[in-house]
Amino acid sequence: MPNPTAAMLVIGDEILSGRTRDANMHFLAGQLTDMGIDLKEVRVVSDDHDAIVAAAKVLSSTYDHVFTSGGIGPTHDDITADCIAAAFDVPIDVRDDARALLHAHYDRSGQELNAARLRMARIPNGAVLIDNPVSTAPGFTLQNVHVMAGVPSVFQAMVASVLPTLTGGAPLISRSLRVMRGEGDIAGPLRTFSETFGDLSVGSYPFQKDGLYGANVVVRGTDAARLDSAMDALSEIFGS
Amino acid sequence: MPNPTAAMLVIGDEILSGRTRDANMHFLAGQLTDMGIDLKEVRVVSDDHDAIVAAAKVLSSTYDHVFTSGGIGPTHDDITADCIAAAFDVPIDVRDDARALLHAHYDRSGQELNAARLRMARIPNGAVLIDNPVSTAPGFTLQNVHVMAGVPSVFQAMVASVLPTLTGGAPLISRSLRVMRGEGDIAGPLRTFSETFGDLSVGSYPFQKDGLYGANVVVRGTDAARLDSAMDALSEIFGS
Repeated sequence: MPNPTAAMLVIGDEILSGRTRDANMHFLAGQLTDMGIDLKEVRVVSDDHDAIVAAAKVLSSTYDHVFTSGGIGPTHDDITADCIAAAFDVPIDVRDDARALLHAHYDRSGQELNAARLRMARIPNGAVLIDNPVSTAPGFTLQNVHVMAGVPSVFQAMVASVLPTLTGGAPLISRSLRVMRGEGDIAGPLRTFSETFGDLSVGSYPFQKDGLYGANVVVRGTDAARLDSAMDALSEIFGS
Repeated sequence: MPNPTAAMLVIGDEILSGRTRDANMHFLAGQLTDMGIDLKEVRVVSDDHDAIVAAAKVLSSTYDHVFTSGGIGPTHDDITADCIAAAFDVPIDVRDDARALLHAHYDRSGQELNAARLRMARIPNGAVLIDNPVSTAPGFTLQNVHVMAGVPSVFQAMVASVLPTLTGGAPLISRSLRVMRGEGDIAGPLRTFSETFGDLSVGSYPFQKDGLYGANVVVRGTDAARLDSAMDALSEIFGS
């Protein structure tokens, strides 16, 4: 059976403006690879209702899972929950279980559960809450869309909450060989190698270091023994 | 006149697998912001012909410019040039001017211009070459799509080659105020502020540091005097 597929949707004007460098994509990509869910696409869109709704619709109908990052806080620019509700055409309002979580949290910390904070309890009908052990305000899963915060520590905690509820596939294993020759020199034999091992994915990632050209040849697959054979063959071609 | 719009298309299995953390998005976002081209969307897709062609088509018809990153080297997994040619339905072959560049480069370095390296002279009909002062093999612009390398040093050099050929708009200016209060406390007055300055974009980006909650309030616009007024008003609301 093929692995489940996934896309990520990053909501973030501050990433598109170059002010902030995204960290969540790299984290999620690693986590999904480890559990055998294939991340096929990432989109970054601005904090714009129509752009978020359109992307959520097309990604959720194309892939098995969609993970969103950002836009679920208490301020006016946090519109992700409403957009996901709109994408699935379901109502959204403050929900009792989410409100109770926030109530307990702000009571403990002696802060007021004001109207702004209460916005974080707005959950689309039919969604399941995602636990947030860092700062309480929950994410949620609506159908195949998992809606999470943009702050990296909270995003990571929510990913840790939601991934164990999903069915993974065969973890993708990567092996790599560092070859200190220009890509142009290794491209011919590498093409032959990639055809011999057509069941594996073979990538070449060039680098330049201290004036020398090299490439990391990365072989990916789900069968460790097959990868061992491939790496043996690769070492024979290029030296280890 | 509104600013020109742009999208970025990152071609990269190694980013989707979590092996490499993308650096080009952050760099390009900053450069475009400085010259008044609005980066509206970024997509990361895998090294897959159909995925690259489909994304190139939709992005090039939606935005004024598309910048691609990755997949233009000499190895078998470098398929971007062919995909962009397919997206615009134009022929692609080794082109004399690109071959001459590579020929001179490999002659100087005493390396052979073999079949693999010659693939880097495959340029779609009608494209304009993008200068690569780092490692010679050119990028190209076909219609509104600018095709560049994935290696960050080469990507950055190509961006420096291509951006001066484009018409920018009004540079987007960002100002920010760091407020050491939880977002839930500032959300109410911040919404009122964002309505008062409806012509500016107002974002709130929460953080947690040493157990304290705060937010960076970021105001963006193209009119420096207007931003000064906004920041004065913001300081009055939250203290400076």
